[in-house]
Amino acid sequence: MSRPTEDDLIARYLAPLAVVAGADGLTDDAAVLPEGPGELVVTKDMAIAGVHFFPDDPPATIAAKALRTNLSDLAAKGAVPAGFLLGLGLPPDWTEDFLAGFCEGLAVDIAAYACPLYGGDTVKVPGPLTISITAFGRAKRWVRRRGAKAGDLVCVTGTIGDGALGLAVRAAERDPTAAASWIGGLTATERGQLRGRYLLPQPRTALAEAVAAHASAAMDVSDGLAGDLAKLLKVSGVGATVAADAVPLSAAARSALRLDPLLRRTVFTGGDDYEILMTCRPGAFAPLAEAAETVGVPCTRIGEVTASAGFVVRDGQGNTLDLGPGRFEHF
Amino acid sequence: MSRPTEDDLIARYLAPLAVVAGADGLTDDAAVLPEGPGELVVTKDMAIAGVHFFPDDPPATIAAKALRTNLSDLAAKGAVPAGFLLGLGLPPDWTEDFLAGFCEGLAVDIAAYACPLYGGDTVKVPGPLTISITAFGRAKRWVRRRGAKAGDLVCVTGTIGDGALGLAVRAAERDPTAAASWIGGLTATERGQLRGRYLLPQPRTALAEAVAAHASAAMDVSDGLAGDLAKLLKVSGVGATVAADAVPLSAAARSALRLDPLLRRTVFTGGDDYEILMTCRPGAFAPLAEAAETVGVPCTRIGEVTASAGFVVRDGQGNTLDLGPGRFEHF
Repeated sequence: MSRPTEDDLIARYLAPLAVVAGADGLTDDAAVLPEGPGELVVTKDMAIAGVHFFPDDPPATIAAKALRTNLSDLAAKGAVPAGFLLGLGLPPDWTEDFLAGFCEGLAVDIAAYACPLYGGDTVKVPGPLTISITAFGRAKRWVRRRGAKAGDLVCVTGTIGDGALGLAVRAAERDPTAAASWIGGLTATERGQLRGRYLLPQPRTALAEAVAAHASAAMDVSDGLAGDLAKLLKVSGVGATVAADAVPLSAAARSALRLDPLLRRTVFTGGDDYEILMTCRPGAFAPLAEAAETVGVPCTRIGEVTASAGFVVRDGQGNTLDLGPGRFEHF
Repeated sequence: MSRPTEDDLIARYLAPLAVVAGADGLTDDAAVLPEGPGELVVTKDMAIAGVHFFPDDPPATIAAKALRTNLSDLAAKGAVPAGFLLGLGLPPDWTEDFLAGFCEGLAVDIAAYACPLYGGDTVKVPGPLTISITAFGRAKRWVRRRGAKAGDLVCVTGTIGDGALGLAVRAAERDPTAAASWIGGLTATERGQLRGRYLLPQPRTALAEAVAAHASAAMDVSDGLAGDLAKLLKVSGVGATVAADAVPLSAAARSALRLDPLLRRTVFTGGDDYEILMTCRPGAFAPLAEAAETVGVPCTRIGEVTASAGFVVRDGQGNTLDLGPGRFEHF
């Protein structure tokens, strides 16, 4: 099998993605980030084949998801993308076809999110495909996790649980013998919608400026709504009450829940939502919701911050739900 | 075997390393880099067990080398360290002892190089230990690889070849049956010096400001002097003549060469030097050398840049040396 050398690989596939001046065509060991308005927010997410994605996921969505999980972190901090570095560890069986698809996926998102490639490192790995992206963003105000105050409202963008249900759909496609019965009860369209949410997150970049303007605390939901809200509340030194019925669900997720009501735990604790979970002062909710509507991102109030620590999720009858361990562990 | 959860691991081992305000105690998904003087230089090097280091190297030097290879890139660009992000992929057999040693190594260098930890990501890897560091630096002027002009002098810091010879020493210690005879001919002190250069690079951070002030082009020597110089010349559109006898060697490397003259190729083309290779206008060499002497870093003139492409290495008799493929391939 003839494969390009590292230099050829960089020149052929990666350099065309690095068109900004500070990247110097990837001919250097380092890059220069331009100055910009506001605060420089940096984040780094690693993605490992077999842990964070399936090795046989489409190469373009593997690349896009690795970038988008970082952009989701930036958006939740109130930051719009400014660029990224790509660390790529190629396994022994990498192919040029894979790399071509991977870079096509990156090219689409580099344009879609105005997030240029500045540099990185390409290495061989005697193990699984390893992606390590560092993303840079600019925020008028860095919105931290710590910042929620008693009396604030808890809100969330988009819909919750689709990523975790989509993971189950994707896993069932790879191993039909392990498919849960609810998956067969969905329409093909519903399965496709859930699978799509798992494969390709939609970072809420369009809402970043509104988050910076209105949120008191924020983070993206990547390890499950319940566990991530618990983290935000703990570091803020407060608690919360969440109304289960207020948590926004997609039509496909509602279909799945009708087929198997026990999936509610998956919806609340599963990972891969990549929505923004935030708190805001009661008076800030109206402008936040208006800004969200303007950019076409649903933003739903789901609870209130309380002075006492811990948080509870209540159903429509006022009963406290038991969500189990309450956390999706990528680790 | 009881091991900490991801949150406990971060709180116990990594958060104590992240004491700057922008890191927020590693309780957030992102960090804020403060504004600073000059240009913001970013670089990213990955290090994989079994590829870039031996899995049984001391945990503290594994960590320090992973950070220092990035700091070496920064220094060669004229940048002093401003902070870093750590991506850490832990293999299935990771131990808390390893992590403790690893973080001790980082703590020492964070202090020594004034390079605080800002954040990162910790994941499990069904493969080798994977380290992905992104380092930030500040430079009065970003010194690129492209910039060498005909008539410039070629110079290099420290001594060349110790890292590659040290790798051979380290490999021989791990597998004595494969040891080359020259290794047995060295004194234990010489072997220790070479091993030390392989295990723990000395990034030339102290010279960064002088590089920014005086170099016309620069890069760090990580893949071998010959191959790295070829890259710098190619992207600058020039060539060079290098005097083999002028290339600075340590006493230990000279001992090895006396035992086996064929090691000259290893010295010129082996990797892991982490010295700065640079070009400067003839008039800039005196102030550069003076600055180098002030900070205690040897800086040696080894050749001249020529208008014609390609480069040759000549011995004391004026004969051109054949260095073979001329490049160490980590990839």
